[in-house]
Amino acid sequence: MTTENESSKTADLGYARVDLDRRRRCGFPEVIFGQGKTPEEVLGIGRVIVEREGLLLVSRAREEQFELFQREFSDAVWHARARCITVERRPWAKLDGEVAVVCAGTTDLLVAEEARVTLELFGNRVLRISDVGVAGIHRLLAVRDRIEACNVAVVVAGMEGALPSAVAGLVSKPVIAVPTSVGYGANFGGLAALLGMLNSCGSGVTVVNIDNGFGAAYAASTINRMLHEARAGRVSG
Amino acid sequence: MTTENESSKTADLGYARVDLDRRRRCGFPEVIFGQGKTPEEVLGIGRVIVEREGLLLVSRAREEQFELFQREFSDAVWHARARCITVERRPWAKLDGEVAVVCAGTTDLLVAEEARVTLELFGNRVLRISDVGVAGIHRLLAVRDRIEACNVAVVVAGMEGALPSAVAGLVSKPVIAVPTSVGYGANFGGLAALLGMLNSCGSGVTVVNIDNGFGAAYAASTINRMLHEARAGRVSG
Amino acid sequence: MTTENESSKTADLGYARVDLDRRRRCGFPEVIFGQGKTPEEVLGIGRVIVEREGLLLVSRAREEQFELFQREFSDAVWHARARCITVERRPWAKLDGEVAVVCAGTTDLLVAEEARVTLELFGNRVLRISDVGVAGIHRLLAVRDRIEACNVAVVVAGMEGALPSAVAGLVSKPVIAVPTSVGYGANFGGLAALLGMLNSCGSGVTVVNIDNGFGAAYAASTINRMLHEARAGRVSG
Amino acid sequence: MTTENESSKTADLGYARVDLDRRRRCGFPEVIFGQGKTPEEVLGIGRVIVEREGLLLVSRAREEQFELFQREFSDAVWHARARCITVERRPWAKLDGEVAVVCAGTTDLLVAEEARVTLELFGNRVLRISDVGVAGIHRLLAVRDRIEACNVAVVVAGMEGALPSAVAGLVSKPVIAVPTSVGYGANFGGLAALLGMLNSCGSGVTVVNIDNGFGAAYAASTINRMLHEARAGRVSG
Amino acid sequence: MTTENESSKTADLGYARVDLDRRRRCGFPEVIFGQGKTPEEVLGIGRVIVEREGLLLVSRAREEQFELFQREFSDAVWHARARCITVERRPWAKLDGEVAVVCAGTTDLLVAEEARVTLELFGNRVLRISDVGVAGIHRLLAVRDRIEACNVAVVVAGMEGALPSAVAGLVSKPVIAVPTSVGYGANFGGLAALLGMLNSCGSGVTVVNIDNGFGAAYAASTINRMLHEARAGRVSG
Amino acid sequence: MTTENESSKTADLGYARVDLDRRRRCGFPEVIFGQGKTPEEVLGIGRVIVEREGLLLVSRAREEQFELFQREFSDAVWHARARCITVERRPWAKLDGEVAVVCAGTTDLLVAEEARVTLELFGNRVLRISDVGVAGIHRLLAVRDRIEACNVAVVVAGMEGALPSAVAGLVSKPVIAVPTSVGYGANFGGLAALLGMLNSCGSGVTVVNIDNGFGAAYAASTINRMLHEARAGRVSG
Amino acid sequence: MTTENESSKTADLGYARVDLDRRRRCGFPEVIFGQGKTPEEVLGIGRVIVEREGLLLVSRAREEQFELFQREFSDAVWHARARCITVERRPWAKLDGEVAVVCAGTTDLLVAEEARVTLELFGNRVLRISDVGVAGIHRLLAVRDRIEACNVAVVVAGMEGALPSAVAGLVSKPVIAVPTSVGYGANFGGLAALLGMLNSCGSGVTVVNIDNGFGAAYAASTINRMLHEARAGRVSG
Amino acid sequence: MTTENESSKTADLGYARVDLDRRRRCGFPEVIFGQGKTPEEVLGIGRVIVEREGLLLVSRAREEQFELFQREFSDAVWHARARCITVERRPWAKLDGEVAVVCAGTTDLLVAEEARVTLELFGNRVLRISDVGVAGIHRLLAVRDRIEACNVAVVVAGMEGALPSAVAGLVSKPVIAVPTSVGYGANFGGLAALLGMLNSCGSGVTVVNIDNGFGAAYAASTINRMLHEARAGRVSG
Repeated sequence: MTTENESSKTADLGYARVDLDRRRRCGFPEVIFGQGKTPEEVLGIGRVIVEREGLLLVSRAREEQFELFQREFSDAVWHARARCITVERRPWAKLDGEVAVVCAGTTDLLVAEEARVTLELFGNRVLRISDVGVAGIHRLLAVRDRIEACNVAVVVAGMEGALPSAVAGLVSKPVIAVPTSVGYGANFGGLAALLGMLNSCGSGVTVVNIDNGFGAAYAASTINRMLHEARAGRVSG
Repeated sequence: MTTENESSKTADLGYARVDLDRRRRCGFPEVIFGQGKTPEEVLGIGRVIVEREGLLLVSRAREEQFELFQREFSDAVWHARARCITVERRPWAKLDGEVAVVCAGTTDLLVAEEARVTLELFGNRVLRISDVGVAGIHRLLAVRDRIEACNVAVVVAGMEGALPSAVAGLVSKPVIAVPTSVGYGANFGGLAALLGMLNSCGSGVTVVNIDNGFGAAYAASTINRMLHEARAGRVSG
Repeated sequence: MTTENESSKTADLGYARVDLDRRRRCGFPEVIFGQGKTPEEVLGIGRVIVEREGLLLVSRAREEQFELFQREFSDAVWHARARCITVERRPWAKLDGEVAVVCAGTTDLLVAEEARVTLELFGNRVLRISDVGVAGIHRLLAVRDRIEACNVAVVVAGMEGALPSAVAGLVSKPVIAVPTSVGYGANFGGLAALLGMLNSCGSGVTVVNIDNGFGAAYAASTINRMLHEARAGRVSG
Repeated sequence: MTTENESSKTADLGYARVDLDRRRRCGFPEVIFGQGKTPEEVLGIGRVIVEREGLLLVSRAREEQFELFQREFSDAVWHARARCITVERRPWAKLDGEVAVVCAGTTDLLVAEEARVTLELFGNRVLRISDVGVAGIHRLLAVRDRIEACNVAVVVAGMEGALPSAVAGLVSKPVIAVPTSVGYGANFGGLAALLGMLNSCGSGVTVVNIDNGFGAAYAASTINRMLHEARAGRVSG
Repeated sequence: MTTENESSKTADLGYARVDLDRRRRCGFPEVIFGQGKTPEEVLGIGRVIVEREGLLLVSRAREEQFELFQREFSDAVWHARARCITVERRPWAKLDGEVAVVCAGTTDLLVAEEARVTLELFGNRVLRISDVGVAGIHRLLAVRDRIEACNVAVVVAGMEGALPSAVAGLVSKPVIAVPTSVGYGANFGGLAALLGMLNSCGSGVTVVNIDNGFGAAYAASTINRMLHEARAGRVSG
Repeated sequence: MTTENESSKTADLGYARVDLDRRRRCGFPEVIFGQGKTPEEVLGIGRVIVEREGLLLVSRAREEQFELFQREFSDAVWHARARCITVERRPWAKLDGEVAVVCAGTTDLLVAEEARVTLELFGNRVLRISDVGVAGIHRLLAVRDRIEACNVAVVVAGMEGALPSAVAGLVSKPVIAVPTSVGYGANFGGLAALLGMLNSCGSGVTVVNIDNGFGAAYAASTINRMLHEARAGRVSG
Repeated sequence: MTTENESSKTADLGYARVDLDRRRRCGFPEVIFGQGKTPEEVLGIGRVIVEREGLLLVSRAREEQFELFQREFSDAVWHARARCITVERRPWAKLDGEVAVVCAGTTDLLVAEEARVTLELFGNRVLRISDVGVAGIHRLLAVRDRIEACNVAVVVAGMEGALPSAVAGLVSKPVIAVPTSVGYGANFGGLAALLGMLNSCGSGVTVVNIDNGFGAAYAASTINRMLHEARAGRVSG
Repeated sequence: MTTENESSKTADLGYARVDLDRRRRCGFPEVIFGQGKTPEEVLGIGRVIVEREGLLLVSRAREEQFELFQREFSDAVWHARARCITVERRPWAKLDGEVAVVCAGTTDLLVAEEARVTLELFGNRVLRISDVGVAGIHRLLAVRDRIEACNVAVVVAGMEGALPSAVAGLVSKPVIAVPTSVGYGANFGGLAALLGMLNSCGSGVTVVNIDNGFGAAYAASTINRMLHEARAGRVSG
């Protein structure tokens, strides 16, 4: 049984206190972080969000969570590589601008997929560019103009994490860097890429947690949506 | 003697290769990172940039660098707390939107000042809000609406670095977090705040290097300028 | 065969030397740390404690340890989520005051459960409050008075570990912080939350090891029991 | 000029937002963390607190801060070893119970002094016990009963930080452990002691940041005050 | 096919170069480090050593290595808890003195067993003392004289690793400390215990790698053998 | 479907952008890093490279990748211990000089094998020397002249990683050090060996990532090939 | 008084044992590591080397060491930025090939200078290229052919250390990467650059210690000299 | 005023509790760790020890401590390089056996001196061998027999810390390894050498803290004294 309280701002399920006010405050509804939750908990929280928002994202989900979930929500979608569950009953209006999701290597695609799924759910159009690491810099130069044409670039890289620096030096748009845990040895689970990105010589690169494709997508979506609204004359700020 | 080469895209001073093409590519002219450079090197590079751009920022500067600098550039300004030198001969047009620079504690002001100086040089109007750490959360709630009214929030915090999470949960605008090295013991020179921000439970927080007020300001300025241009109908994106 | 020696203060089982004097010295009987012990060892030690104290807690237990255990102790209870075994033949008198167990997110519940089981076994009444992380601060403000009404607050949080700072700034009671290993990437198995809590800007927060719900409960119980006895006029100190 | 706002709950000095409501919420007035503040800032904030509370503590202070301070507050006291400034115009009533401040070695005295100054300012009586490290365990056994007679034990240790475990195994009172940065080499600025205390085999030890004598004292004072009030019949809890 | 070369000092098996001269130089024959070797490699190297020395120790062995081994060496012994294989065809003469293997907790027994097996193979008599951690210091005091009566003390402890400091403060014999990976959270796989032991306030404690029961036993055996020979009048040194 | 673009310099497969120009720029064709790729991706990329170059190396491969691969490329070879797939349709001409692959212990052979497979594919002749760690220094002295006779020495070692220092002190040829993750406890997955090699007292030792036999082989091959060409009079440089 | 012993292979000065055989074994005479030595020790060791070799390099020297030194050796040269002392009485023959010393930023010049001084002393001609970091990749592309024309590239970079990856992807020559401690915050004294280089996606990059310009130069010189000799037909290898 | 209590086992000076019973328990009198103590405290504690034991060692001393000390104890000796104060009024009888103090490089002499001063004060004869690092292994081989002739080898090394492994592989005596903080960059203040020694492939190497020459000497002295007594027939063990 769910109790709505605090002027209907939260739904208290005992094990969770769903934030029903988040869309109003932050622009996007609450997202479920699947890791460490039982399938029952994901279902319980998801039920409240789908009903209220008509839109759901479960990140870091496991297949068993999806299996229980789709028994009740047959339109739920399982994004295997991104490890996400989505439900889109009342889809968001598509935004004008595009967001680039740029990958250093093929092995960074898992994290890039989490970013893409999140971005598309939140109404963004996505330009995917894969495998343009700095060791073959001509590959990046060849796509420079397509990245510049986007509103934001989410740049995903493992190993030494050098790609965001190179991208930031080529375009005038915000670069959000996602270090991945791809690599071995002195990579230390993505620490090398993370430190590389934090110490980027490319001005204005901002960074999210290792493998956090969702977080980068969320930030990119916030910017893209503001631009959309600015063009539409809907913001004063 | 300076040699302009590569179709006038760089000026080779021997010890430095000034990137004269950066403004075209990235939207902002090159900035000098003062740390580890001799006063003569700062002067030499600065001369090229001022002449070309009419606008200069030296970050992480030392007083002796400024002293040599102002002998030649009497209009140079020394921002003691921010440790920056600026020259503004052809100032940038002011942007419409405002950027919030929010501080957890008084001791984070040095880093916040570096952000403010950078933002203002690049044409942004700045709203400064200091000392609203999470241990007295009513102080943050009291200024929530003023932050929401800005286009971007740069949030500066040392110690456990919790403020960006709280801000991100209250506003719908991009939050760029700057960990500071303020603290002691298991703070490990800002590592605690950095890790806290990277692991923020507030969706969409992006992070820059420890004490990197400049980087956060640069990223914020990029977003603010795009919004300005979108409203002015100057972007198609 | 068990040998009681040193004036009956320890029971030497060969693989373990059970401390029979601990209740007298420290207020609580010895607790078994289940990790790394064989089921036979847990049973052997547990037998001595149950007989002597009428009360047993095995923390960090495994199901196979419980299975062997309940063959001999049919009243043993298995707390699956808390991974604890308890036996309560001579239960402790209930204390007057209440202890709050406050959780930042649903995924921190495992650790919170270990704290709750420990607290209840030691005679404390527990107020459970879940999912009040700082990214939706209104959820915490709504329960502030209920936490203040308790004698101690055990605050459990993963990710950036910011909740104890916020709680400490809202209440006048001792706050014992438990970092959890919930998170990924630069969380480093709970290190981010641990450092966050150690560097808390909230005065007087004390911290236990990552995932150590037991330790926090033990400390909280010590304080609650002293308060109970103080009110009953039983302490001079 | 100071602006009191938010129903007189904060005083906004521009560089600081003094929390005037803290005593009501948390039991103790705000304390100034001196590190990284200019003498002028310390004076400005201190002025507000002394006027309002009649009681001031500046921790991590520098001598130059004190020098400016005592020009205006001639009754300010400089605690050189503890690096604290105190002003006591309306001293707190003395609490009944005593708090033990136990030191492993002579070189831990700096941190112990910070704890003592804080405790005494907040009305606690302090029992100081120095140099009872575990390498000469008979020294600790000799003072066991005096520690047990206190309400709380603050245990300060550098190097391997083993003392809190030993104390926790001997007494029934809350043990708050303070790791110090005393040591060299693989001590890593107090990390060894910190990790030792977090991994204590002594049940219920809670830990504060490295060298954080103030934090331990604050927590101890909170407990001692509650006990005092419980005995006086002033809490219902 | 084995090639003996370099004046018969090594046996070159291709994948290994067995050091046949080690006993002459170092006092003990070569020992096989089982980790990362195939069963065939262990067998091949073991064959050379058994033939030459009549005595074999494989540390960090896996059961599959033992299974292949005992097909050829039916007198090989599998020490499950210590994860060692031994063959003793020409056993060493027993030494006069005894070596103490002292354990902080029951869960440290695995490592202690590796030490015991090594010690006994090399001719030492072993006194085992388990579960005398510093949280119940009376347990250690009760066995102090038995440890002092030994020639060397190998002290095994996980968690905060405080036991060697306490032992070193009670006896006059060499203390060799073995940190174990027992613990969780901020234990970081034995790092806490390792740092604790390296920073021991007990003079003269020396330390081996985490979980390295073999190394401690080897060092202890070297000392015990020298004492045996000194008493027998066989050394001049 | 594959699109060749950028003047045929890359082949864009969607998930990968194969660098077809690398051999011209860098001397060697692109190598596939197998880790984190699906068997289908490895096959797709491999197909392009084999066709173009007649030569393929997949490092860090998994058996399932090989199984799919050999269905199409029946001449593909699986190097189990080195975890590599190779195809050699148009083998490289053999170089004159030899490269030494020197191993500290038997357990370092996995990494050494990756180096050997890479070296041989690229046309180098390899001298394998195993198990000559510094604890039996006579074993190294015995092979000194054979290492000196090679053009480059790849030196592979785990544990403390001391072998490269000793080799560098004995020969006049470039020493490329490969730390391995062999060891336990304070080895921290090869960190000890890595730091040891970076801090080598042997002049001119250069280091690659932990377990990176491929990288060391690539660097060694570059040097050996240049020497070959220099002797053949093919370089002017 | 100096004692030559071990068949004149070492000179024992008491505080140092000069290796007089090194040139024969390793190709270069011994170099003095100045750090932590008294001026008298540097002079004493230097005297032996100058006499024997006619050539001296003191790296990591201090000015006071130079001052004492030049009293006896008036032809000694002080390289202030490189912090090196050199004496060149019997200079080495110049090698044919050139070595590139490539710098990411102006602030890396100190380390690059140490490399240059070492290279030139050992007979190499040096091509210096400064300030070609990846954030302005056109600067690097413009000098690509000049680097390719060298025999070896020493690549020096701080911050994220991405330059070696980019260089390795553009040229066919050995790339030796030198991380510098330039940067701040999460740079951790050069750790970020070091990890970045070790995890380089550019094949065949080898790495030396942070700020170790000398080590990179030594390795580069070894390769360059071998090429010189190969061209001259002096090696059989 | 000094109070002797606990059956004269400690002298309580307020700031210190001198352990007067240590010689009886542990074989050596208490030693003063000078770091972090005021000159007055060193004098106060020293006075008690000199009177009682006729023998004093202050390690990690500062010159100002010595200056105050010698005003009262004119026979006190200042060992500048070892940073120790000694007083020897009732010197210990000289032991038969010798202890080797072996150094990898000249810059490790500070730590070696601390070991030597400690050893000689405790009655040991010391063989000093300097600058025999593994990069010139012939230097070590030349002194092998002299080390073997000693009873214990204290081996001091910075950088990669490889020397103890090499020594342990050459002699049959206990090897006590002392990592030093000599080095730079990825040396991390001695961490590289420490990890190297803990992971030594030389069996039976035991390790003390970074720069802890005193600790190694204490342990060596314990062994040497036992051997002396064993030969004299004074131990039963």
